[in-house]
Amino acid sequence: MKTYREELWFETSTRRAYLNITPQVEAAVHTSGVQEGLVLVNAMHITASVYINDDEPGLLNDYDRFLERLAPHEADYRHNLTGEDNGDAHIKRQPARIIHDGFYCNRRYAATTSLAARVGT
Amino acid sequence: MKTYREELWFETSTRRAYLNITPQVEAAVHTSGVQEGLVLVNAMHITASVYINDDEPGLLNDYDRFLERLAPHEADYRHNLTGEDNGDAHIKRQPARIIHDGFYCNRRYAATTSLAARVGT
Amino acid sequence: MKTYREELWFETSTRRAYLNITPQVEAAVHTSGVQEGLVLVNAMHITASVYINDDEPGLLNDYDRFLERLAPHEADYRHNLTGEDNGDAHIKRQPARIIHDGFYCNRRYAATTSLAARVGT
Repeated sequence: MKTYREELWFETSTRRAYLNITPQVEAAVHTSGVQEGLVLVNAMHITASVYINDDEPGLLNDYDRFLERLAPHEADYRHNLTGEDNGDAHIKRQPARIIHDGFYCNRRYAATTSLAARVGT
Repeated sequence: MKTYREELWFETSTRRAYLNITPQVEAAVHTSGVQEGLVLVNAMHITASVYINDDEPGLLNDYDRFLERLAPHEADYRHNLTGEDNGDAHIKRQPARIIHDGFYCNRRYAATTSLAARVGT
Repeated sequence: MKTYREELWFETSTRRAYLNITPQVEAAVHTSGVQEGLVLVNAMHITASVYINDDEPGLLNDYDRFLERLAPHEADYRHNLTGEDNGDAHIKRQPARIIHDGFYCNRRYAATTSLAARVGT
């Protein structure tokens, strides 16, 4: 069985950001040479997550406000008593999606998924 | 390594619907001939998702109201400025589950999971 | 292809509990002898789920209150008309994470993930 693994690193200047990483994932699939298989795209930082949905500015704005409503940054989090200030980000990541489906051929995979990583701190 | 892929297509007459697709998934697993492996059941439409929970009418009603509370259809979504009217559906899909676990033998797999696809537009 | 499967059983004295099962998962990965692959950690009870986030007491408290806000135990659930009283637990499990990523070598896997199973009834 052929496997391929690649690390992608991102840095953002804002507390929350949505990065479209579909091109990087497609490139990794291409590099792997795997014709049929599974792509696992996993955010390795605990307050980041993989968002699988349209990369449409209005929707990203809607989703960001949805997350802020779910777990407001300014609310009272016991986690912040540790000295961190990202209690909300730990919660916000929970509803997002972690798995990217590349079980199909590259064409479908490219056609059906717009994938962005939410980076939070 | 043996792999098998099948597309299931659904059409609904209502804006939101819950379809129990467990029989189709079981049939696909049977057809595949795979004895031990992973089944990935992925909703290929971005406002649909795979719901893994009991197929009990009261619970589906509870869950539907939960989703409507989380992201009301009538709320103001910037995504709808694109001409679409499904901003809520893009958000509603986020908390649902995308992965169906078939790592075990068919008996357990059948016994433990009730799987339905939520179809939204 | 090498595969390995193990069942972990847990019992709790409280309605909701967070158990850190990372050591058990690491032990299973070690026992499997697999050097590169995928670990699927799936909660086989429908109101339990796999939570992938820090095992920090403040955060667990925050998350528990978040879930209770999302789906209060005392709210009115049609599912409870079946005679059960866990309508909230069926909903609470939805935003949690089901997949544990062990695609990487054991070192990273150990270093990056703190995994706990939420057990609900």
